[in-house]
Amino acid sequence: MLQLVRLRGPHTVYDPIRYLLRSSGKRVRPVLTVLACEAVGGRAAAALDAAAAIEALHGFTLVHDDIMDNADTRRGLQTIHRKWNDNVAILAGDEMIALAYHSLLKTKTRKLAILLRMFTEAFIEVCEGQGLDNEFERRLGVSLREYLHMIDKKTAKMISTAAALGAMIGGGSKQEVNALGTYGEQLGRAFQIQDDLLDIVADELSFGKSIGGDLKQGKKTYLLLRGIERTRGKERRLLEKVARRSRISIEEVRKIKEIFERHGIIDEAQALVRNHTRRAQQALAGLGPTRAKEMLALFADELVARTS
Amino acid sequence: MLQLVRLRGPHTVYDPIRYLLRSSGKRVRPVLTVLACEAVGGRAAAALDAAAAIEALHGFTLVHDDIMDNADTRRGLQTIHRKWNDNVAILAGDEMIALAYHSLLKTKTRKLAILLRMFTEAFIEVCEGQGLDNEFERRLGVSLREYLHMIDKKTAKMISTAAALGAMIGGGSKQEVNALGTYGEQLGRAFQIQDDLLDIVADELSFGKSIGGDLKQGKKTYLLLRGIERTRGKERRLLEKVARRSRISIEEVRKIKEIFERHGIIDEAQALVRNHTRRAQQALAGLGPTRAKEMLALFADELVARTS
Repeated sequence: MLQLVRLRGPHTVYDPIRYLLRSSGKRVRPVLTVLACEAVGGRAAAALDAAAAIEALHGFTLVHDDIMDNADTRRGLQTIHRKWNDNVAILAGDEMIALAYHSLLKTKTRKLAILLRMFTEAFIEVCEGQGLDNEFERRLGVSLREYLHMIDKKTAKMISTAAALGAMIGGGSKQEVNALGTYGEQLGRAFQIQDDLLDIVADELSFGKSIGGDLKQGKKTYLLLRGIERTRGKERRLLEKVARRSRISIEEVRKIKEIFERHGIIDEAQALVRNHTRRAQQALAGLGPTRAKEMLALFADELVARTS
Repeated sequence: MLQLVRLRGPHTVYDPIRYLLRSSGKRVRPVLTVLACEAVGGRAAAALDAAAAIEALHGFTLVHDDIMDNADTRRGLQTIHRKWNDNVAILAGDEMIALAYHSLLKTKTRKLAILLRMFTEAFIEVCEGQGLDNEFERRLGVSLREYLHMIDKKTAKMISTAAALGAMIGGGSKQEVNALGTYGEQLGRAFQIQDDLLDIVADELSFGKSIGGDLKQGKKTYLLLRGIERTRGKERRLLEKVARRSRISIEEVRKIKEIFERHGIIDEAQALVRNHTRRAQQALAGLGPTRAKEMLALFADELVARTS
C-alpha cells in the first residue's frame, strides 16, 4: 500500500496519507480484490494495483467521513483532522482519490475502461451514500428501507466493486464477475449490520470502542430503526429520543438493549447477518474449485463471526 | 455542464453542485479543451465530455479551497460552505471529482487510458500545489522560485492539461499535443501572475473584490515575494509584516503599492505576464491555420487584458 505514496512533498499532503495507510485496518476490500482475481483463475499480482486503488479510495472515505462525524479516533489512532487539522484532512482525502485512480490506471488489462467505469460508479455511490447518511442524521422519520438503501450505497457497493474488479482483472466470464459482485454486495450488507450489532453486543475490550457508542451519538442503526418500527408507547419514545440525538444515560443504554432483546430485534439482526452471509457464499457456487474460492467462503464466515 | 448532475438525490450532494455550475465562471479550461481539439482538426463535439470533466475537477478545487481559505464569496455568490456548511461542501467537492471522471470516461477515443493518466496526473499536481499553498501560508521565508513552482502545480498544470486533452481527443500528433500543452502552461502562468497584479492595479468595480485583498489576507503573491527580494530596511519590514499575516491598514496598502511602483515590480510583473502570453502564442506556431488557432491566440490576449 505504501508504495502508492511517492517519496516527495509536500509533507502536509503525504505525511497524513502514510499515517493512515500504516495503521492496521482490516484490509477487507483489497483482500477481496485479490481473492476474486484468483478465484476466476487470474494471478494475484495482476490485481494488486486495483486492490491498492480500492483501499486508497476507502481511505479517502474514512478521512473525509471522520471530519464530517467529528470523530476523534480511527483504528485506535487519532484521526487525521485531530492530529493535524481539517484542511490537512480534506486535502489528504482528495489526494488519496487521485492516488487511487493513479494506481488503478497501472493495471495491465484490455478492460481498463470498464474497470474505471465500475470504480467511478462505486465512487459516486459512496458519495451519495454519505450524503444520505448526513441527511438521515438530521431527520427523524428514517425508515428501515431507506437505511438499507443507504448502506447499499455507502458500504455494500464498494465491497461488491472490490470483488468484481478482481474478477474482471482475472479474466472472469460475465457470470463470474456478476457472481463475485453479488458475493461482495451480500457480504457488505452482512458486514454493516454486524457493525451495528457489535455496538450493542460486542465485548468492549476487543471491540476497541465503548458499548452503545452509536446510541449515544444518535446514529440511526438497523437495530434502532427496526426497534422504532416494532415498539409503541414508552419504549418507542425512548428509542425516538436516541433518534433525536438527545443525550442518553448509561442506564438508558441498558434499557434500550433490553428493549431490543425483548422484541427479538437482536436475534432478527443476527439472522439477517447470517442470511446475507449465506447468500454471499451461495453466489460462489458457480465458480470452479480453487483455494481462493474456499478462502472467500471462509472470509465471509470470519467477518461475521468477528467481535471487533 | 449541468447535464453532469443527474436529476437524482441526495439533495445535499447535488444541490450545491448545481449551484456552483450555474454560477458564471470564466470557463477558461473547458473552452481551451474544445478549441485545442478543433485546432488540430477535431470536432468540438468529441471534446465536450472531457471539457465538462476539466470544469468539474476545477469546480472541486474551488469548493475545497474555499473551505480551506475560509472564503465568503465565489463568483459573486456565497461559497458553498457558507450557504450550506463545511460537511456539505466537502462532500459536494468529492462528488464533483467522481462526476469529472464519469464524464471523461464517456469520451469516445482509443486513447482513453492516456487521457485518464494525463487527467489524474493534473489532479495529483493540483492537490500538491494546494498543499504547498497551505504550507507557504504558515511559513515566512518563501522564495519567488518556490512560489512559481507552486502556481505551476496549482494552476498552470490543469490549464495545460485542459488544452492537451483537447488536442489528444482531436487526433493531434505528439508535437501538436505538446504544443497545445505548452500553450496552456504558459497561459496558466500568465493568468496567475495577472491575478496577483489585479489585486493591486484592478478597477475595484469591475474586479468584484476590493483592492489589496490578497495583502490583507497575507497571501504570498508574486508581487509580495519579489518585493521582499528587492527591498531592504523599512520597506522590506512592511512587506514582511504582510507575509507574517499581520493586520495592515488601508494606508499601508497604499504605501505597499507605492513600494511596488518605486521598485518597478508592477512593471516587471506586467512584463512577465506579456512574456508568458507571447510564449503561449508562439507555441501555436507549428499548428495549421484554423479558426480555432486564431481564437486561442486571441484568447491569450483577452485573458491578460482582463480587468477582472
